[in-house]
Amino acid sequence: MNWLDEVKWDANGLVPVIAQEAGSGDVLMFAWMNREALAKTAELGRAVYFSRSRGKLWFKGEESGHMQSVHEIRIDCDNDVVLLKVTQLGHEPGIACHTGRHSCFFSKYDNGQWVATEPVLKDPESIYK
Amino acid sequence: MNWLDEVKWDANGLVPVIAQEAGSGDVLMFAWMNREALAKTAELGRAVYFSRSRGKLWFKGEESGHMQSVHEIRIDCDNDVVLLKVTQLGHEPGIACHTGRHSCFFSKYDNGQWVATEPVLKDPESIYK
Repeated sequence: MNWLDEVKWDANGLVPVIAQEAGSGDVLMFAWMNREALAKTAELGRAVYFSRSRGKLWFKGEESGHMQSVHEIRIDCDNDVVLLKVTQLGHEPGIACHTGRHSCFFSKYDNGQWVATEPVLKDPESIYK
Repeated sequence: MNWLDEVKWDANGLVPVIAQEAGSGDVLMFAWMNREALAKTAELGRAVYFSRSRGKLWFKGEESGHMQSVHEIRIDCDNDVVLLKVTQLGHEPGIACHTGRHSCFFSKYDNGQWVATEPVLKDPESIYK
């Protein structure tokens, strides 16, 4: 059986994907892949997602230069969630978030509020120009 | 504005949730929450998910005893994915997966195949009886 057939794609042909930084263990972002994106990710060794808003493959870093080199591709016990272990390239420390932060998970619940906790490492205006 | 209103719930009133072990950084599992589950998680300091298969709140560990104590609740830049930092309780080392493994992400892509890599720490038959 083809490994791509073992993935339980959802009704839209997508699977949720968690990208985790290999070195730090930080969870960087969450995105989606279709079959082609997952196949490309394995083939190229770089993260390729499916952009639901743009309706097409999203070669992470294609605009920002913040590519993700992929060390491991894992799948969960239900075969319906993918976990990537990546190195976040293009900036030191790595920037995965379009806000210019290291991780997309920079807001923390604190006493009835979401509080932004991580610094902006690079102005998004200078990332996407 | 209520912090729960800032979450972008999907068409089913759910949000995807990643549970990460605070100590090791390991991604343990992926699940879903509705508004009530997230409110309960914050209130109780333990992970409460929404079981899509059973259509009701799932107090993680209610059957297995493998509860998750919650240290941090984070949300991503789009307010549509939650990240929990947890301690996995009930067994040492922690078992998050219903297969009796530490993490649900125990299958790794290798040369065109998914290969199970992590040991079963406890027989599922003795977890769910």
